[in-house]
Amino acid sequence: MEIKVLKDILDANNQIAQQNRQLLASKRIMAINLMSSPGSGKTTLILRTVEQLKDKARIAVIEGDVSSSIDAEKLGQAGIAAIQINTGGGCHLDASMVNSALLNLRLDDIDILFIENVGNLICPGGFDLGEYLRVVILSTPEGDDKPYKYPLLFTQARALVVNKTDLLPHVSFDLEAFTRAFKGLNQDAALFLVSGITGDGIKDWGKWVMDTLRKLRTQSDAK
Amino acid sequence: MEIKVLKDILDANNQIAQQNRQLLASKRIMAINLMSSPGSGKTTLILRTVEQLKDKARIAVIEGDVSSSIDAEKLGQAGIAAIQINTGGGCHLDASMVNSALLNLRLDDIDILFIENVGNLICPGGFDLGEYLRVVILSTPEGDDKPYKYPLLFTQARALVVNKTDLLPHVSFDLEAFTRAFKGLNQDAALFLVSGITGDGIKDWGKWVMDTLRKLRTQSDAK
Repeated sequence: MEIKVLKDILDANNQIAQQNRQLLASKRIMAINLMSSPGSGKTTLILRTVEQLKDKARIAVIEGDVSSSIDAEKLGQAGIAAIQINTGGGCHLDASMVNSALLNLRLDDIDILFIENVGNLICPGGFDLGEYLRVVILSTPEGDDKPYKYPLLFTQARALVVNKTDLLPHVSFDLEAFTRAFKGLNQDAALFLVSGITGDGIKDWGKWVMDTLRKLRTQSDAK
Repeated sequence: MEIKVLKDILDANNQIAQQNRQLLASKRIMAINLMSSPGSGKTTLILRTVEQLKDKARIAVIEGDVSSSIDAEKLGQAGIAAIQINTGGGCHLDASMVNSALLNLRLDDIDILFIENVGNLICPGGFDLGEYLRVVILSTPEGDDKPYKYPLLFTQARALVVNKTDLLPHVSFDLEAFTRAFKGLNQDAALFLVSGITGDGIKDWGKWVMDTLRKLRTQSDAK
C-alpha cells in the first residue's frame, strides 16, 4: 500500500509539472531548478547572476524553504521579484507548490525563473517541478566525495556550479578527483568554478545561462 | 489515505525504536544520533572523538548514507568498528535499519555508539532510532542563519557542535548572532566550537560525551 500511495503522489506531481512546463513554455520563460545542500550559496549565486545579466534578461525567483523567508527578503532588498514557499517540514518543493507561486508572478515580465529548491542533496531529485533544466551547486567546504554519496542529483544536472573557490586554499577539496568523479556520472553537464564572494567565474556561468536561453527560444520559434 | 499511511509508518518506526532503546539500555550503551548537512564533518568529528577517548570508552559507529561506503571505510582504516547502512535513496535512517545494524555489532564490547545519520537537516528529525540523545553539527561555511531555516533539528539537539572554526576568518559567520538564534530555540543544549582539522575544542566535547555517559550509567544503576 505504501508503494501504491507513493506512485499516486508521483503521478499527480508529474501531471501538474507538465502543466507548469506548458505554461512556462507559452510565456517563453526558462525555469531553472537549483539544488544544493544548505548554505552552499544558491541565493548568493542568484544575486550575482542578476547583477551580471540585469540588462539582458528579466529574472524572477521562487524560493523554497522549510520555514522562514530570509532568502526571499534578501532578494527583495536587491529589487528582485521573489516569492517564498515554505514547505512546513517537507524536504523538497513539488509541482503544485510551484504552480501556486506561478499564479502570483507576472509571467509576462520574466525571461528566466530560478526555482531555489529546499537545501538538501536527496529529496529534490525525485520531484519534477516543470522546470526546463536542473543545476546543482556544490561548495568546496562540503568535500569532493559528494558525487559518490548523492549520485542521483549529480546525474540529473545540466550544469554543475562549484562555489566558494575562494576557500580552496583553506579546505581539503581535490578539484581533479572531484571533476573525474563528476564526469564519470555525467559527461554532458557544463562545469563552472565560481566564488559568490569574489565574483570569480560568474561571467562564464552567466554567459552559459544566456546562451541556453537563446537556444531554447530558437528551438521554440522553429516549432 | 496518505496521512493514515504516514501515521502507520511512524507508529511502526516508534515501536522498533523502543526495542532498540531497550536493547541498548540492557547493554549499557549510550547511542548518539549525529545529524548535519552533507560535508559538515560528522565522520571527522567521530574520528577525533575516538582519538580523544580511546583509553576511556569503547566506541562503535553505524554509518548512514544514500549510497557508497566511503565513511565506513575511513573509520575502518582507523580501526573503528563501523557498519554501513545504505538507504538506497532515502533521506534518513529509520529504526529498523538501525535494528539490523545492531544485530551485526558486538554489543558487549561497546560503551558509546555513534549513529551517523544521512547528511541533511530535515528528514532525520522525524524518525526516532532508539538513541539516547541527538547531536547536531553545523559547519561555519554553511552560514549562521541555519537555526531559522531548519528549526526542528536544532530544537531536538542535546548538544550542538559548530565545526570548521578554523575557517571563521575566511567565511561570513556571525558567531554571536548564531548563538543568540540557537539559544532562542534551545536554551538547554550544550554548545561546542571545534575544528576537526586542527583539533581545537575537541577536548571539551569529548569531556562532555564522557560526563554524559557517566551520568546515564549512574541513573541506570540507581534504578
